[in-house]
Amino acid sequence: MIITTCGNSAQIAQKLAKKLNAKFSPLTIASFPDGDLYLKFNCDVKGHEVVLVQSFQPHPDQSLFDVVFAAETAKDLGAKKVTLVAPYLGYMRQDKRFNAGECISSRVMAKLLNNSIDKLITIDPHLHRYKSLKEIFKIPAIKLSANPLIAEYIKKHFSKEVIIGPDWESFQWAEDIAKHINVQATVLKKTRFSSRHVEVKMIHPVIIQDRNVIIVDDIISTGHTIAEAAKDAKKKGAKNIYALGVHGLLVENALDKLRKAGVNGVVTTNCIEHPSNRIDVTPLIVEALKKR
Amino acid sequence: MIITTCGNSAQIAQKLAKKLNAKFSPLTIASFPDGDLYLKFNCDVKGHEVVLVQSFQPHPDQSLFDVVFAAETAKDLGAKKVTLVAPYLGYMRQDKRFNAGECISSRVMAKLLNNSIDKLITIDPHLHRYKSLKEIFKIPAIKLSANPLIAEYIKKHFSKEVIIGPDWESFQWAEDIAKHINVQATVLKKTRFSSRHVEVKMIHPVIIQDRNVIIVDDIISTGHTIAEAAKDAKKKGAKNIYALGVHGLLVENALDKLRKAGVNGVVTTNCIEHPSNRIDVTPLIVEALKKR
Repeated sequence: MIITTCGNSAQIAQKLAKKLNAKFSPLTIASFPDGDLYLKFNCDVKGHEVVLVQSFQPHPDQSLFDVVFAAETAKDLGAKKVTLVAPYLGYMRQDKRFNAGECISSRVMAKLLNNSIDKLITIDPHLHRYKSLKEIFKIPAIKLSANPLIAEYIKKHFSKEVIIGPDWESFQWAEDIAKHINVQATVLKKTRFSSRHVEVKMIHPVIIQDRNVIIVDDIISTGHTIAEAAKDAKKKGAKNIYALGVHGLLVENALDKLRKAGVNGVVTTNCIEHPSNRIDVTPLIVEALKKR
Repeated sequence: MIITTCGNSAQIAQKLAKKLNAKFSPLTIASFPDGDLYLKFNCDVKGHEVVLVQSFQPHPDQSLFDVVFAAETAKDLGAKKVTLVAPYLGYMRQDKRFNAGECISSRVMAKLLNNSIDKLITIDPHLHRYKSLKEIFKIPAIKLSANPLIAEYIKKHFSKEVIIGPDWESFQWAEDIAKHINVQATVLKKTRFSSRHVEVKMIHPVIIQDRNVIIVDDIISTGHTIAEAAKDAKKKGAKNIYALGVHGLLVENALDKLRKAGVNGVVTTNCIEHPSNRIDVTPLIVEALKKR
C-alpha cells in the first residue's frame, strides 16, 4: 500500500502511513507556465494499492480536479487499486436543485469519482436529503463517524455539560454524541433566509444556566449557525460555550464571529487540518483501511 | 440551439449566437462560502442542443472543471446534445510521459470530455505526438484550422514578407500559411533546455535583409521561442518583425519579452480573447456548427 496526497492532507496522510507501516510518498503538483496542471507520482505504484488522502478544503474544485488527475495517473501507471480517503468530502450540501437550472454538484462530484477511483472512505459526510452514500456512489463508499471519538473527548475535557445541535440537520450528531456520554441534548430550530443569514430558536429547552454548553455540528463553515446558537446560550446564562465540529472549514471570519458571539473555544477533528484540531480521526481510517 | 459559456469566451460565444441566430445565455458561475462551485443555467435547455463555448485559458484547470460540471448539468436538465466549442483546447502539450510518474494530462482531459460531452469542435489543437484527435477522443472531435484566415490577413496587411516557423513543431503552420499566399517560409531549430529556457538556430536560411518577417506559431505562451527567433531575424537585418499566433496565451511577461526582442507587433486570432486579437475565427466555427 502506498499512501499519497495532492497536498491538503499531508499531516493525516503521514500519520496513516506510519500507523499502517505503509510507504508515504506525496505527489508533486505544480503548474506549467500556461497554467496546465503538472502532476507526478514520486514512487513506482505499479501493482500497488494507492491510497490518496485528500480533504476537499480549502479549494474544493482544485481538490476534486487533482484527485481525478491523480487517480487516472495512478491507473495509467499500473496501480492495482485506487482508494480515496477524503476525511472531508465537499459538494455534499448541494444535494437538491433549489432553483431552476442549478447544478446538483454532489451528483457530478460522485460521477467523477465513480469513473476514476475504486473505493471511497469518508468521515461524517453531510447526508441530509441523501439517506446514504449509495444514492450517488456506485463504487464502495464507506461512511465513518467521528462521534465516538468526539464523545470521548467531551467526557475527558468537560463537566456539567449540555450538548446543543444548532438545527435539525445537526441534531443527529448532537443526540448521538450525547447518548454516548449520557448527557442532555437539545436542538435549535434554524430559519435560513440566505446562505449567510440564518436565525435560530431553541426547541425543547433544557437548563442552560451555569452549564457548559457544547454546540455540535458536522460542518463549521462561516460559523453563522453556531454563532446564533451561542448568543442564545449566553442569554440563557451558560457558564462556558464551546463550538465542536467534525469538519472545521472556518471560512471567511468564522473564528472572529464565534468569539464575538461568546464562544470560549472551538474544537475540531483533523478531517480538515486547522489549528483548532483536537481530535485525531486516524484510528477510524486505519481500521477501515485494514478491513479492505 | 442554445449558446452558452462559463465565462472565458463570452465575446466569441455572443458572436456565434448572433451569426447562427441562436439564443445566447451565459451561465452563472460562482462559489459558495465554503468554495464549492455554484453553477446555473439561466434558460430552459430541455430538448435543446447546448453549445458550450469555452477556451481553456487563462485558468485551464478551472475551465475544464467548469465545462464538465456545465455539461453534466445540461444533460441532467434534459439537453438533447452538448457540444463543446473550445477554440483553444488546453493540456494538448502534455502528450507524453517525459519523466517517470508524470501525468499525461491530455489523456485525462480527453477522458473527462469523452464522459461528459457529445461533440468537440476546436481550432488548431497542438497535435505533436498525437497525429489526430481520434487518438484520445472517442466522441466526434472536429479540428478546424485558422490558417486560411491567417493567410488572408497577412496578404491584406503585409508586403515583402517572409514567414518563419520558430521550430519544427510550428513549421507545419508556417509552411501551410506561406503556401496559401505564395511566399517563402523557413524554420528555426529549437533546443529546449527547460520549459522556460530555449535556444534556436535557423535552418534553410532565406533572405531576411529588409524583409517583413512574420514569425508564426500555433501557441504563443511565454514568448520565449518567438523572442529567440525575433532576435535572430533582427541580426539578419529584418525590416519589421511580427509575431503571429493562433492562440495568444501570452503568459508571464510575454508581450514585454517580445517587444524587447525586437518584435514590432503581435497578432492573434480571437481563439483566446486578448487585446492583440486581429483575426476573427467565428466564420470557421459557424460553418462547423451548421454542418452538425
